[in-house]
Amino acid sequence: MIDYSRDGADIYRRSFAIIRAEADLSRIPADLEKLAVRVAHSCGMVDVINDLVFSPQAGAAGRAALAAGAPILCDCKMVAEGITRSRLEGGNPVICTLADSGVPELAREMATTRSAAALELWRPMLAGSVVAIGNAPTALFRLLEMLDGGAPRPALILGFPVGFVGAAESKQELAENSRDVPFVVVRGRRGGSAMTVAAINALATERE
Amino acid sequence: MIDYSRDGADIYRRSFAIIRAEADLSRIPADLEKLAVRVAHSCGMVDVINDLVFSPQAGAAGRAALAAGAPILCDCKMVAEGITRSRLEGGNPVICTLADSGVPELAREMATTRSAAALELWRPMLAGSVVAIGNAPTALFRLLEMLDGGAPRPALILGFPVGFVGAAESKQELAENSRDVPFVVVRGRRGGSAMTVAAINALATERE
Repeated sequence: MIDYSRDGADIYRRSFAIIRAEADLSRIPADLEKLAVRVAHSCGMVDVINDLVFSPQAGAAGRAALAAGAPILCDCKMVAEGITRSRLEGGNPVICTLADSGVPELAREMATTRSAAALELWRPMLAGSVVAIGNAPTALFRLLEMLDGGAPRPALILGFPVGFVGAAESKQELAENSRDVPFVVVRGRRGGSAMTVAAINALATERE
Repeated sequence: MIDYSRDGADIYRRSFAIIRAEADLSRIPADLEKLAVRVAHSCGMVDVINDLVFSPQAGAAGRAALAAGAPILCDCKMVAEGITRSRLEGGNPVICTLADSGVPELAREMATTRSAAALELWRPMLAGSVVAIGNAPTALFRLLEMLDGGAPRPALILGFPVGFVGAAESKQELAENSRDVPFVVVRGRRGGSAMTVAAINALATERE
């Protein structure tokens, strides 16, 4: 037998304790503290907390929307798959339109990526939703364009696209002009579905 | 209109070019080069390549197994969900047993996590499989215990559990004694489902 902890609850507790001991959380508002800790937990990096950028209303707006059952609109299936359903006390629908049959054709017509085109199918659900972008910079850019064009406002945008082309730029665009929508981003190249899932899981319930 | 690239293929090409320009790939064997680039791509961090540890046979063993249709055994649904099916030229089954109905009871009996207990259901499929662990350190520890107990050998272990308790330790245990199974790990706390998916997607086909 190898010596290691087999107690899931204990592993969570110790993990969060390590993060809180190592992290500088002084900049993080109380209602985003658990989000910051869970985002660090999801990627194994405490210093990612230093790259969180957020609007002052983000924590309250996200909690209220999730508690009220707002739909969670995800840019990729990994985000939709990772959200812990038992934490969604509002019974929120978790929606990813990327694999919808009309999306490839829509992407050709719009001359954009499937990830961006898939957002057209979000329009009827956008008002008051929680948007969770954990993969595609083009999805976040497109959302901002839709808001510029008068699309209904989500309650919160979690902007965590990842990568080397457009990720940092799309998050900077959101942080500099969030179109009156509360937001949380991790600036720079880092991001991804696990961090996005962690953010949703943190805002959905006070349970650690 | 915001100015950004909307061409998915172009975004991929430019992303991989940036990684190859910034990364030190001198230590990476030719048959793991695309894996290294995709792993960096998945997390937005070029320096993660410096933390890759692997056995010399890993690239060849993984490619051969995947091409022959070996099952891909995943510790969590995010990994199973993220693997691009159109890249699986061997038509490989992608299997995650974590949500199987018997797993919670099995975890109680075994006094371990559900992630570790779920591996009991892998036994009939282990021989020659590709194991993709992208979340739970306890799953990787348990796999090593099963191998110590005489379980059939996978063709390749991708060890990318993430976090603060057991992740670094489980990967170090594998790297120091891989029980005669080829492996790739990212040492330390970093890891996760996106990196694991990237590794599978890279080994499954030569297409970039």
